[in-house]
Amino acid sequence: MRTKLFSGIAAFLFSTTLSAQTDDSSVIKKIVDDVLVNSSAYDNLRYICKKIGPRLSGSANAQKAVEATARMLKEAGADTVYLQPCMVPHWIRGAKETGYIQLAGGKKVNLHLCALGNSVATDKKGISAGVVEVRSMAELDALGEKGLKGKMVFLNFAMDPTNINVFKSYAKNGVARWGAPTIAAKYGAVAAVVRSLAINNDNYPHTGVTVYNDSFPKIPAVAISTNDAEWLSRQLKMKMQLTAYIQTNCRMLPDAPSFNVVGEIRGTEYPGEIITVGGHLDSWDLAEGAHDDGAGCVQSIEVLRAIRANGIKPKRTIRAVMFMNEENGGKGGKKYLELGEANKETHLFALESDEGGFTPRGFNFTATETQLEKIMPWQKLLLNSGIDYFGKNGGGADIEPLKKLHTVVADLAPDTQRYFDIHHAATDVFENVSRRELLLGAANMAALIYLVDKYGL
Amino acid sequence: MRTKLFSGIAAFLFSTTLSAQTDDSSVIKKIVDDVLVNSSAYDNLRYICKKIGPRLSGSANAQKAVEATARMLKEAGADTVYLQPCMVPHWIRGAKETGYIQLAGGKKVNLHLCALGNSVATDKKGISAGVVEVRSMAELDALGEKGLKGKMVFLNFAMDPTNINVFKSYAKNGVARWGAPTIAAKYGAVAAVVRSLAINNDNYPHTGVTVYNDSFPKIPAVAISTNDAEWLSRQLKMKMQLTAYIQTNCRMLPDAPSFNVVGEIRGTEYPGEIITVGGHLDSWDLAEGAHDDGAGCVQSIEVLRAIRANGIKPKRTIRAVMFMNEENGGKGGKKYLELGEANKETHLFALESDEGGFTPRGFNFTATETQLEKIMPWQKLLLNSGIDYFGKNGGGADIEPLKKLHTVVADLAPDTQRYFDIHHAATDVFENVSRRELLLGAANMAALIYLVDKYGL
Repeated sequence: MRTKLFSGIAAFLFSTTLSAQTDDSSVIKKIVDDVLVNSSAYDNLRYICKKIGPRLSGSANAQKAVEATARMLKEAGADTVYLQPCMVPHWIRGAKETGYIQLAGGKKVNLHLCALGNSVATDKKGISAGVVEVRSMAELDALGEKGLKGKMVFLNFAMDPTNINVFKSYAKNGVARWGAPTIAAKYGAVAAVVRSLAINNDNYPHTGVTVYNDSFPKIPAVAISTNDAEWLSRQLKMKMQLTAYIQTNCRMLPDAPSFNVVGEIRGTEYPGEIITVGGHLDSWDLAEGAHDDGAGCVQSIEVLRAIRANGIKPKRTIRAVMFMNEENGGKGGKKYLELGEANKETHLFALESDEGGFTPRGFNFTATETQLEKIMPWQKLLLNSGIDYFGKNGGGADIEPLKKLHTVVADLAPDTQRYFDIHHAATDVFENVSRRELLLGAANMAALIYLVDKYGL
Repeated sequence: MRTKLFSGIAAFLFSTTLSAQTDDSSVIKKIVDDVLVNSSAYDNLRYICKKIGPRLSGSANAQKAVEATARMLKEAGADTVYLQPCMVPHWIRGAKETGYIQLAGGKKVNLHLCALGNSVATDKKGISAGVVEVRSMAELDALGEKGLKGKMVFLNFAMDPTNINVFKSYAKNGVARWGAPTIAAKYGAVAAVVRSLAINNDNYPHTGVTVYNDSFPKIPAVAISTNDAEWLSRQLKMKMQLTAYIQTNCRMLPDAPSFNVVGEIRGTEYPGEIITVGGHLDSWDLAEGAHDDGAGCVQSIEVLRAIRANGIKPKRTIRAVMFMNEENGGKGGKKYLELGEANKETHLFALESDEGGFTPRGFNFTATETQLEKIMPWQKLLLNSGIDYFGKNGGGADIEPLKKLHTVVADLAPDTQRYFDIHHAATDVFENVSRRELLLGAANMAALIYLVDKYGL
């Protein structure tokens, strides 16, 4: 009897679990199919890239993007759309930069370069100085003031191509861009020429933020293309001395008013529990910010559309957030936390897509072990739509502040092998996004949000 | 004692297994790193695409590709390079095709079209006929002679975007191209206009082979772009009758002499056991055949280079094979089997890469259960280089014939979400291949070949 009873219970439990899984599988299939067929994400991305274009914080285009995505969120079926005001840094490039290397014989070879974000400019007549190459922070420190005073430092940190996870290489060498110029300034360098943080060899310079340390002089910093970096390094090996010239026109204006854009579907049972899905709306000024991060924005809007279109009534409040100023200040993400705290909001979960609109491969989560035990089995439900793994240590720059509220933060992990070909460069354009890859990401994001909403955390 | 002895043996076995695994992991890491840094595959692909270009069987370019890849195989370190003569179909497009739809008011709207491979041509003055749309084989049969006699059939089979595995949709709808035109001919249609087998909407027609049945008339068959197919379908819904005109100039010439290109590294212990890795050298005439299948060719050459460069002395004979004529006859693959049989070769394993030079995600194998038990655990060794799964039912068109010899056949399974955007269309060009994605595929192919050679099957 006992055995029978137990089997009975087991069968009951098993059938309940199985039927819940079957039900989830069929809802997820419906969501994924719908996104692949009916999504507006690709058209929205085209609009953001082609009708608006580059949209650095504080620019007129950033404001246009605020207005456009507010409209898209309404069209997607958000029941409330609103703006969260925040002040943002307002850096402008000014007239196009120029620069060249003067060879020993006097010949000038132009460089493919761009000022780094937040950099100060040279004066109108530019800066000319002897070039010194360094390949690591250790080399920089070893040269010190003796080797660098009055020089133009060439920070030739090549990204390691052997990391299959390209973000590992970026994390390691990013310091060349955001940290090394100011250390070079400490040692008396007059300007910094940084090898673009790209794995491929081409002629496009990649911008991105550089960070000054107020204790040291602020020196102009530019990126040069990887091809130029390779060439310059070879020239330096062959000739004892080379002179570089750069002229830049960028400057930081006073902070400007801007906004996060928020669209909500209010929860039916627990409206106070908030699930956030977002990307960042600002982009660098050199390109259309298609992968970085137009993709994450339109995918997040698509999550709302897919929920509405498939008749799902979320128990919890689902918010799609277009964060402002991820690229050169992170003010939008900080403001989102600040308002969440001020309004005593409960932030259950936040998902960011900011690694490009490529084929999705996984999701990563930062959560407690108990929460992970709940989350990890969901991976099986997303296997059929292409999600091969759930990993740990998830999150994104804009939702990082929410960790203070013990929110579970996560990121969509797409296949990023092409990401650093186009990251922060003029090649980050709509044409380089595959509609299907973009939509598969959005579809899986919608499916994950559906699960988080249904089961909580 | 017994327990102790057992533990002792277990520990010994475990440590042996572990050390073999550690050794394999480190060799594989060395191979993968080397390919990512030193590969010549991308440069070889550039040469094949840009210096040679389209290379349909029987063309002068196909012969140039034979010579170029023979040279590349030598450069990669093959100890023997030779050609396997085979006769191939020699179809040519002739002067560019034209076509249009004549609207009720008399206005002519040009179509983006191309003759299907192996198709017969219209005569010089072209064919004009009323258009009838069908969306499936069932609709085609339902219309029959009554609905199709004297008509131009518009085979508007849209690929299903909801299959995450895009090849499923291709397998289902491919019949629109290779089978339906001849069935339409049976019912008296005078020509066939086929919706391109593509998931995305653009203006590029996609060619590919159509197959005639000698019992029915051979009618000219063209592909039109997906945008044109959508437009034409809408027009047909609005207007009762439309006339289409097409004029094509293609023809089949007598079979031409051509070659498979083979490069070998002879095995040190079992030279008679052959491991084949290959792609197909011919490509459609509209584009550079970069993904289809220049990628598979240069990856296969790279396997030899990586083995040599990393000092691996294979026990078995490793052959990289550039198969000729996969696209419109499969003569190279058949010849390879024929010669294998004639020379009484033992073909242990054959791997084909012919699904595009995209990020690799898995390998698929056709093998016995016993063999699969040996193969499947290797997947763990490739996980760090991005291989998420080993699956069943592997193979490729060129190595399919080897199944007759009970060879284990396998395919590299890359991420194919972008494949049918460019497949057989003018957009299959070098610029649409990511160096890094291409190399990751080659690196994993080399690693798999290393394991097959080391452990046998």
